[in-house]
Amino acid sequence: MEDRRALMEKLDVNFDLHEQLMESLSKLHERYFLKQNNRPRTMAQFDRSFHESHGGRVTEVLRHREDGGKSIGTFCIYVPEEVALAVNVLIIPLCGGSAWAIPFADKALPRDICPLIRSTFGMAIGAVCPYKKLKDFVVGETTCDAKKKVWDFFGFKVLELPQKKRPQDFQLWLDEVMEFKRMMEELSGKTIMPESLHEAICLMNRKRRVLQKINAFRKLQSPPISGLDALLVSQMALSQDICAFIDDAEALAGELQERVTGGVSAYNGDGRRVLFAGSPAPMGYAKVHHIAETSGLHIVADESCTGSRYFNALVDEGPRDIEGMLRSIAERYFTIDCSCFTPNTERLENIMRLVDDYRIGGVVHHILQYCHTYNVEARTIERALRKKGIPSIIIETDYSEEDAGQIRTRLEAFAELLEKAK
Amino acid sequence: MEDRRALMEKLDVNFDLHEQLMESLSKLHERYFLKQNNRPRTMAQFDRSFHESHGGRVTEVLRHREDGGKSIGTFCIYVPEEVALAVNVLIIPLCGGSAWAIPFADKALPRDICPLIRSTFGMAIGAVCPYKKLKDFVVGETTCDAKKKVWDFFGFKVLELPQKKRPQDFQLWLDEVMEFKRMMEELSGKTIMPESLHEAICLMNRKRRVLQKINAFRKLQSPPISGLDALLVSQMALSQDICAFIDDAEALAGELQERVTGGVSAYNGDGRRVLFAGSPAPMGYAKVHHIAETSGLHIVADESCTGSRYFNALVDEGPRDIEGMLRSIAERYFTIDCSCFTPNTERLENIMRLVDDYRIGGVVHHILQYCHTYNVEARTIERALRKKGIPSIIIETDYSEEDAGQIRTRLEAFAELLEKAK
Repeated sequence: MEDRRALMEKLDVNFDLHEQLMESLSKLHERYFLKQNNRPRTMAQFDRSFHESHGGRVTEVLRHREDGGKSIGTFCIYVPEEVALAVNVLIIPLCGGSAWAIPFADKALPRDICPLIRSTFGMAIGAVCPYKKLKDFVVGETTCDAKKKVWDFFGFKVLELPQKKRPQDFQLWLDEVMEFKRMMEELSGKTIMPESLHEAICLMNRKRRVLQKINAFRKLQSPPISGLDALLVSQMALSQDICAFIDDAEALAGELQERVTGGVSAYNGDGRRVLFAGSPAPMGYAKVHHIAETSGLHIVADESCTGSRYFNALVDEGPRDIEGMLRSIAERYFTIDCSCFTPNTERLENIMRLVDDYRIGGVVHHILQYCHTYNVEARTIERALRKKGIPSIIIETDYSEEDAGQIRTRLEAFAELLEKAK
Repeated sequence: MEDRRALMEKLDVNFDLHEQLMESLSKLHERYFLKQNNRPRTMAQFDRSFHESHGGRVTEVLRHREDGGKSIGTFCIYVPEEVALAVNVLIIPLCGGSAWAIPFADKALPRDICPLIRSTFGMAIGAVCPYKKLKDFVVGETTCDAKKKVWDFFGFKVLELPQKKRPQDFQLWLDEVMEFKRMMEELSGKTIMPESLHEAICLMNRKRRVLQKINAFRKLQSPPISGLDALLVSQMALSQDICAFIDDAEALAGELQERVTGGVSAYNGDGRRVLFAGSPAPMGYAKVHHIAETSGLHIVADESCTGSRYFNALVDEGPRDIEGMLRSIAERYFTIDCSCFTPNTERLENIMRLVDDYRIGGVVHHILQYCHTYNVEARTIERALRKKGIPSIIIETDYSEEDAGQIRTRLEAFAELLEKAK
């Protein structure tokens, strides 16, 4: 306890407030995750990592920096992590998932922007983010209006994502990846060498492959892992040390295979298979997953940045020269079907593929409040799903628990509708 | 009346509903504009044009189309009008300013996107937009998340605006202007000739120059035109026939010069000089202008798309070859300091210049609800204004009258604060 206080105070964190935050997160974690029946035994490691995200992980990052390593904050899976890894720059995803921190943000930012941004800056403004001092700078991007302008307000560096996906847009994106390379080289004082970039590519691909393997089990009639636990794994993929995560995830994948062989499902009883699509669910937030999975729905796929969008595509491991590798990296990230693109037919096609592959009965569109792009796009996708005979429901929500009852009522009704539609 | 019914029914407009809309707009127009004292005599022509926007102007557009002319709908002053004009394609700005139409939009679109988009599509969905059938297609752009995704939903053509202003971004924008040229040539079946493009450039510049002339009068200690009337002029600049508008605006400019010579002001009594900055106020909407100017504030400059952003910069009339002219056009539009850019230092500088040139005592940040870019950017600008000792106030509102009392109380308090700060 006193060690933790010393660590936190060293990082300009208000220790008492931070303890309150941790308590609130622990309670939610218990309610959402630990109360599930029939969890894979190896999920315990992810529970530990969750609790260590503001403890042991902080010490790891501190040690990395004390050893001369650099680190940057990010908010988006569009930031090409391989490039940073190649010169030992650690990426710290800063997306907030905690309702608790939001009131602090209201001093500086409008209230009607998304809870993810408000939670993140609430953590910083409220002096409860241990990573605030553990980074050299922040690299934002232009994936949405509110984020883009908040980066301006705080004076962050910004990667420009184009808004279409034509060849000239790819060229603009490739230039940004090059620019990010220069940025990382300048920060680290090192030149990116072909071997280290190739190693970084392979390491990130390993992480994506194990996530693909875990998620593929959810295609089965009786998934050996719940939607909630699959979400926790994805959340930890974004915050844990990459090698430690791969080890834990491989252990989980092994156990899931055993469970399948032994006929063990994560679910007790029946439930309708649904796809969770849209805005992400960052660490600390699992409200809709929890309500859905206790309302007769089984989330068997996550189409979000805390889901398939993060691990779907791999970087081509073929090229061995810097230019070729940077192009492969740019190409891989450019396949991410974020709702910031127009038109976003790629996302529509990917969703239709998920619906088929995971034998989805219905889609839960998850919209973090005021996230215009996923919100409007949900209408476009809903229209296409309707033609395919797949019902969907739009849940627009924030991190608070105030609408939990209303969401439960709506999701229970949705489960009934899917039951009848079978 | 029967002629009007026939015209409207020919255009698939629900005549009775449309009459309700017109009545609601007329009432607002009377309350906001006609009740002002001491208006310039020549403003009567703009009142007429306002009333004719759904009457005589519709007939004009219809005639244009019957004569073989083409027309497109737009939503943004970033669409380069010169290029369309050069092949006789009429641009019809479709931005809705009427609260009355909004409920119709709620059937298809989320409620928490800006009233401008909801009003526009409310008009279309509610079958009260006479221009719905009077266009070949719509050209949207990527200036904000909600608009971008709504264009997707309706399948519109989209011009991509980059999000930064570096050379590679300009190149992307220049490509879009070229693409728009091809689009206009294909639609009209004509090749754009150097003479006609040069003529269009000069004509658009004439329109901008007369707007500049009218607005320069507002720099004077006793402006001969009110903020409300200057807004009406800008609103009509977007909807009236260009030549008719220039004639009317020149007549107004002449009268304003006479008023200045004769020492005639638009305002009775004292008021604090303020800048209206941020989201636009499209035709049909003048709520904040009205409340401000009846609460002790004089709006002496408009920093919005229905203000300086529309007429500030001219296209260079020097180049005479197509390529050179298209580059000049792209350059001129690229100077528009919309809040969609990051960083947007240009806008900050322009606002500081307006504050000096127009001897501004305070800034009213006008934010249409859920417009994230202007909303967050208002905080960045507020911070810079504070350093300069200029107070500002953020008014986040929609088209309804529900918050009128609250806005009045806040603006009256702001006027008092400016009075004390003198």
